[in-house]
Amino acid sequence: MFIPKVKKSHAKKISEKVGLPPGTLIFTGEKRVEVEKITIIDYNEETFEIKEAMEVPENLHEIKDTTVRWVNVEGISKLNIIEKIGKQFQLHPLTMEDIVNPAQRPKLESFEGYLFLILRILRWNKAEKKIMSEQIGIILGNTYVISFRETDSNIFDLILERIIKAKGRIRKMGSDYLVYSLIDIIIDNYFVILEKIGKKVDKIEEELVENPKIETLHAIHLLKRELITLRKTIWPSRNVVNSLQREDSYINEATQIYLRDIYDHIIQIIDTFENYRDIISGMLDIYLSSVSNKMNEIMKVLTIISTIFIPLSFLAGFYGMNFLYMPELKIPIAYPILIIIMIIIAIIMILFFKRKKWL
Amino acid sequence: MFIPKVKKSHAKKISEKVGLPPGTLIFTGEKRVEVEKITIIDYNEETFEIKEAMEVPENLHEIKDTTVRWVNVEGISKLNIIEKIGKQFQLHPLTMEDIVNPAQRPKLESFEGYLFLILRILRWNKAEKKIMSEQIGIILGNTYVISFRETDSNIFDLILERIIKAKGRIRKMGSDYLVYSLIDIIIDNYFVILEKIGKKVDKIEEELVENPKIETLHAIHLLKRELITLRKTIWPSRNVVNSLQREDSYINEATQIYLRDIYDHIIQIIDTFENYRDIISGMLDIYLSSVSNKMNEIMKVLTIISTIFIPLSFLAGFYGMNFLYMPELKIPIAYPILIIIMIIIAIIMILFFKRKKWL
Amino acid sequence: MFIPKVKKSHAKKISEKVGLPPGTLIFTGEKRVEVEKITIIDYNEETFEIKEAMEVPENLHEIKDTTVRWVNVEGISKLNIIEKIGKQFQLHPLTMEDIVNPAQRPKLESFEGYLFLILRILRWNKAEKKIMSEQIGIILGNTYVISFRETDSNIFDLILERIIKAKGRIRKMGSDYLVYSLIDIIIDNYFVILEKIGKKVDKIEEELVENPKIETLHAIHLLKRELITLRKTIWPSRNVVNSLQREDSYINEATQIYLRDIYDHIIQIIDTFENYRDIISGMLDIYLSSVSNKMNEIMKVLTIISTIFIPLSFLAGFYGMNFLYMPELKIPIAYPILIIIMIIIAIIMILFFKRKKWL
Amino acid sequence: MFIPKVKKSHAKKISEKVGLPPGTLIFTGEKRVEVEKITIIDYNEETFEIKEAMEVPENLHEIKDTTVRWVNVEGISKLNIIEKIGKQFQLHPLTMEDIVNPAQRPKLESFEGYLFLILRILRWNKAEKKIMSEQIGIILGNTYVISFRETDSNIFDLILERIIKAKGRIRKMGSDYLVYSLIDIIIDNYFVILEKIGKKVDKIEEELVENPKIETLHAIHLLKRELITLRKTIWPSRNVVNSLQREDSYINEATQIYLRDIYDHIIQIIDTFENYRDIISGMLDIYLSSVSNKMNEIMKVLTIISTIFIPLSFLAGFYGMNFLYMPELKIPIAYPILIIIMIIIAIIMILFFKRKKWL
Amino acid sequence: MFIPKVKKSHAKKISEKVGLPPGTLIFTGEKRVEVEKITIIDYNEETFEIKEAMEVPENLHEIKDTTVRWVNVEGISKLNIIEKIGKQFQLHPLTMEDIVNPAQRPKLESFEGYLFLILRILRWNKAEKKIMSEQIGIILGNTYVISFRETDSNIFDLILERIIKAKGRIRKMGSDYLVYSLIDIIIDNYFVILEKIGKKVDKIEEELVENPKIETLHAIHLLKRELITLRKTIWPSRNVVNSLQREDSYINEATQIYLRDIYDHIIQIIDTFENYRDIISGMLDIYLSSVSNKMNEIMKVLTIISTIFIPLSFLAGFYGMNFLYMPELKIPIAYPILIIIMIIIAIIMILFFKRKKWL
Repeated sequence: MFIPKVKKSHAKKISEKVGLPPGTLIFTGEKRVEVEKITIIDYNEETFEIKEAMEVPENLHEIKDTTVRWVNVEGISKLNIIEKIGKQFQLHPLTMEDIVNPAQRPKLESFEGYLFLILRILRWNKAEKKIMSEQIGIILGNTYVISFRETDSNIFDLILERIIKAKGRIRKMGSDYLVYSLIDIIIDNYFVILEKIGKKVDKIEEELVENPKIETLHAIHLLKRELITLRKTIWPSRNVVNSLQREDSYINEATQIYLRDIYDHIIQIIDTFENYRDIISGMLDIYLSSVSNKMNEIMKVLTIISTIFIPLSFLAGFYGMNFLYMPELKIPIAYPILIIIMIIIAIIMILFFKRKKWL
Repeated sequence: MFIPKVKKSHAKKISEKVGLPPGTLIFTGEKRVEVEKITIIDYNEETFEIKEAMEVPENLHEIKDTTVRWVNVEGISKLNIIEKIGKQFQLHPLTMEDIVNPAQRPKLESFEGYLFLILRILRWNKAEKKIMSEQIGIILGNTYVISFRETDSNIFDLILERIIKAKGRIRKMGSDYLVYSLIDIIIDNYFVILEKIGKKVDKIEEELVENPKIETLHAIHLLKRELITLRKTIWPSRNVVNSLQREDSYINEATQIYLRDIYDHIIQIIDTFENYRDIISGMLDIYLSSVSNKMNEIMKVLTIISTIFIPLSFLAGFYGMNFLYMPELKIPIAYPILIIIMIIIAIIMILFFKRKKWL
Repeated sequence: MFIPKVKKSHAKKISEKVGLPPGTLIFTGEKRVEVEKITIIDYNEETFEIKEAMEVPENLHEIKDTTVRWVNVEGISKLNIIEKIGKQFQLHPLTMEDIVNPAQRPKLESFEGYLFLILRILRWNKAEKKIMSEQIGIILGNTYVISFRETDSNIFDLILERIIKAKGRIRKMGSDYLVYSLIDIIIDNYFVILEKIGKKVDKIEEELVENPKIETLHAIHLLKRELITLRKTIWPSRNVVNSLQREDSYINEATQIYLRDIYDHIIQIIDTFENYRDIISGMLDIYLSSVSNKMNEIMKVLTIISTIFIPLSFLAGFYGMNFLYMPELKIPIAYPILIIIMIIIAIIMILFFKRKKWL
Repeated sequence: MFIPKVKKSHAKKISEKVGLPPGTLIFTGEKRVEVEKITIIDYNEETFEIKEAMEVPENLHEIKDTTVRWVNVEGISKLNIIEKIGKQFQLHPLTMEDIVNPAQRPKLESFEGYLFLILRILRWNKAEKKIMSEQIGIILGNTYVISFRETDSNIFDLILERIIKAKGRIRKMGSDYLVYSLIDIIIDNYFVILEKIGKKVDKIEEELVENPKIETLHAIHLLKRELITLRKTIWPSRNVVNSLQREDSYINEATQIYLRDIYDHIIQIIDTFENYRDIISGMLDIYLSSVSNKMNEIMKVLTIISTIFIPLSFLAGFYGMNFLYMPELKIPIAYPILIIIMIIIAIIMILFFKRKKWL
Repeated sequence: MFIPKVKKSHAKKISEKVGLPPGTLIFTGEKRVEVEKITIIDYNEETFEIKEAMEVPENLHEIKDTTVRWVNVEGISKLNIIEKIGKQFQLHPLTMEDIVNPAQRPKLESFEGYLFLILRILRWNKAEKKIMSEQIGIILGNTYVISFRETDSNIFDLILERIIKAKGRIRKMGSDYLVYSLIDIIIDNYFVILEKIGKKVDKIEEELVENPKIETLHAIHLLKRELITLRKTIWPSRNVVNSLQREDSYINEATQIYLRDIYDHIIQIIDTFENYRDIISGMLDIYLSSVSNKMNEIMKVLTIISTIFIPLSFLAGFYGMNFLYMPELKIPIAYPILIIIMIIIAIIMILFFKRKKWL
């Protein structure tokens, strides 16, 4: 599973950082891009311009009044990139420390001159059949947005396309709307994850009815654990969006309505999540009952068979005794009579079991 | 079951929408009416007028000062209808997006010039013996109400009748009272659903006492799941009604008292719901205990039978041995003595079991 | 049990009401008095007057300034009585609807000119050995109190007596103190119910230690269900009393102190309730453990007996074989040796069981 | 156990009080002192005076401005004592009713001229090895404190000593500090109770690991029940102390800091309590697992023994058949071969069990 | 385990303190340093000075305006040290009482002239493989910080180093930043503890899948208990940091941002904690299921073996009877026929078991 691994490696690094002064930049994740890349997009209603760079340009923080600048950084392991951007935009040391530590909880923090958001991108990796989790740090200033990503996956290509083709409102609105668009696409991807989990739930439920095995139980346990870890990502995101709505100095009213819509989506995601949790708890009961039911049925039939033969075997053993003076043994009719008695005993026991509804 | 299906198909569509600009109109449900239909009802205390249309009239938003206009749209899959209405009444793009996405949670949102409500209609489908869930979007303006429904079921016919026959207060009051009436009838239908669930609970409980089977367990699980999904509909409705009461600019004081009454009904529904949930949890314990009790009883009786015969069978086997020098075998009285010993052993064991209260 | 029945019949009636305009008077309970009766009590510090009537007098709402009028209506199935009183005292249609629908939750609602309370009277029916639940609706005006009861039980006779004999403060104080007195006596009766439940808990606990049976489990389940339903009555009563304390325009300061006392009693009742709930949950564990313990003990002893005899029986069977060349069979001392071996095996096995603490 | 008894007798008395006017003085506990006694302590920074009396002096409420008067009443069954004190200090009838009803929850109530506190003293009775619970009612006026106790135990002797010897701040401070001292000593005694419970928890845990028996389970259940009842005492005490801190008109700032300290102690007690609760819940799981584990082990070994002998016994039985034409019986080597076959079968089965890790 | 021991010894001492006046200094822990030592560090942006002492210097509280003084006391059993410091800095008696009682919950209290913090240092003791818990009391004045520690472990050496080498901001900022640095290093150590617990969780989970034993269950129980006790340390720390942030008169704005960062870390710790708790609860279910599954499998195979042989043994016994007139016995072909019948019976039973999926 992907999650314990991330957690493990993080904890190791964190413990290496114990005692260092706050704001010390140390990259504590795994490198997840081949080459760090910076994309700079400037746009306003009339025009746009896209540049790619491997290093931080000198005048990155000089932005024209009428345009919005979006700086998208892919890869956070090159500390000098982060440091240069931080210096130019006057980011707080703690902000920079959080950006390069990819094990943060989603959060929203207000600093002088900018808002700082941490969110997590969840994507379904088809090849490895697992959920990939990636941290994204977003800086929202009045005329600029800086996003720091761990990987170079194509999740934001659609937004770039909208900017290029001037689709929707994005070119007409400010940096707050750009941040909204980023968050929107991140949250929309959670629905895809939900869908995958929904399918797993259905599959396990089917197994449970048809043929519950110990593997089914392990699958339930794994699913439960996955939900526990996903919850850690999704619950705090709700608070982030909720707080963001109220940041009047960065978010204007029109965008607030859009953020309310995202908030609504998160509530819907959380709701479905909780449903899955309830359903999965119920599954465990079903599993245990099914298994014990199956076992009980086996034991019942088998024990009944043994019980019917026990008195009969006793009788057979009884007349296998070697006493010299056993008068019955000499009576010719004794043998068939015994057979009849044995049959009667068997029938009586079966009837008794039937009446008691044990058969 | 109806609910997973809705969820599943929804999730699929939602994931298709990932990355589209907000406010993009895409119908994400199943078509549930044959023909989309618009009903326009104008009424005031003196008079009323009802028109039906297949297309949106040009002057739909031109309403006389003294009348209330109710526009009831049945079927939400024809996007041009929604778009035209939206343009005429200046609805926000997000409102329109929510209307055509029939997997929303109940919610209340305030936009400029109108309130937007999402609720869910629950109806018992007698033919298919299942609960049907339908989304309804309601726009409440100062002189008009627009309702967008997924199906054309007759749930609102009674309100139409009241308007036509001027029954009750409806003709004397404003658009807020009309919205109240719609919500009232929606919530009243929840009682019908509760009744059905109550009957299921009673039936399962009966089975549980008389003859608990693995099927009973599955029925409990299904019922539990049904409750989980219904909760998702009913809980947020409480918040909707509660918030609606406080919207002073749209709801006047007289109507607020009526909304308080609905709020009270929802609380009552939620209460009964919680009771069912508690009772159902208790059922699981009863089921498990009953099954294990039955099993234990079987095992007990059977094991006792085996145990009584084991020493007797040993004795019979013992005197079946073929040693040449077994003096007992030659004594004529040995055989009847052995029989007596066997009877005594059996009696002692039965008495022992009785004293231990195992029999 | 009494409670499901009430619920069932209620739900049926509620569903019959679906779609009717709000404020439509329909009696949705069972008739629980033989003859509807109205008792009118006028009193002040100096004097009092009691009248009984079958119909509503014309001038019921004309009350002298210095007196308090208490109108006690027993039986709510005669709708014209409710309607007449409602008209005279200008009660809101919703108030009247709630009064005749005897399945309300306890609640407090403020209308123009009066407070409206719903409470439930719980009484122990000795004859039928069950709890009787009855709804009471109370209207508190500045100079009058109207109580609508479902039955004509004698619960309020003690208050009548206090008014007649001028016991306590009741004659010196206003309508608010009268309402306090009514609530006080209703809540005091909950203590009686608690006592009955406490006895049941003790009885079940005794059974549990002495001889737990499947019936004990069913008793626990029934008790649990009873508690669930009682909770539905008692919890909201707390809110009613709490809100009532704060209704300054109807309740004067002196009476508020008394209401605080009632509030305290309800908290005490709820506390004891919660204790019972915790104890009952614990009982289930004890039951299951006791049963499985008993079963295990049986199985253990029985299995040990079988196991001791199994090797012995094998030996007996072994020397019962009919091979011509079995040299042991011819040795005279073989038989006693075999007996000794058998005894030794039995002793060894018993010692082994003893050392393992299985015996 | 002590607690159910108190509850039972209380409920009986409460139900006898049903319908009496509020403020009616009826003693509803058991008499727990031999002779009712009143101790009157007057003190200020310079001097102090202690008087004991059997009856209430006439001028009890006449207190010099510069002194604090502490009236300690031991025994609450003599109603005329309570009544006289109540009259002199103008206590509210409900206060007096609560004082003589020793089954109150801890609470704090503000009346005109005084604060009224109910607390419970918990003491460990070494002789009877159980927790003794005693109600104490405290009246805090500006220059006086009245404490009403059920018993005459020596819990407050240490405070008396401090007053006499002028130890600590007590003589320099007002009535609020005296009340603080009383509460402090009461709460400190809860630590002693905690210690006893901690020892029981340790003892049960030891039993659980070494040799779990059904008695262990009963001990867990009893302990759980004890915790439930203690919680009823300790939780509300927290609220009492918390509210008391905020009563500015009776508690001056210096004393508030001391009360904050007590509050801290209660939080600590509650914390430890919750820990015990969690540990005890865990114990139940351990118990059930241990018992079932032990049982399983027995069943396993025994069943394996039986299973090994079953095929062997069949073979022995097989060659015990009396067919005339069984050629093997006549072959001299058949007998030793059969013995070898039997040994091989036994070995194979043992190896099979070993490989499956059942042995 | 380390925790019960601390608790036990504490409870003993606390109960010895019952009845003593508040503010009485009694050391209630175990002595955990060999020699009590006081380190005095004075620093400002330009310079610093470090002194060590065994006794409290006379002028400890005389601090230059421009410097920050940090007094670090290691060992709290020498009461005269605490008393002298208390007198010089005018600490409240309750503060001093709490400092020498090393069983406090983390808390923040505001006194006149200083803030008082209690926190707990958790360190992993490699030698004894257990968590060591140590109380630290911190006094934050405007120009000084006093820390009282139980042990002399080197946890704060890194901060001393930063002061000496002027690393980071510490020398440029005030006493509040020093307190922040102390808390930061304490909280960072919790991550190390988390890492250890994470490893234990992984190890137990592995055992659970491979070979669950009763020891695994005990390990789960111990881990659970450890989490319960750690929670007691970590939860209240959150409140301490949260409250500290809002203490405007001692904490200036720049430091508040740093405290917010610590708060964030604690939330992250608590999150991971809760995850572990959820995972551990799930483990118990897995354990129980695995064990019962293994047991069931044994019982199933064994019972099936017995059942197959029971009818066969009966047949063998049957033809071992000694009746004179058993015609089958004389028929030469009867013996092989019987063998064939026995084989057929065995095959039928195996097929039956297979079809029922019991094999």
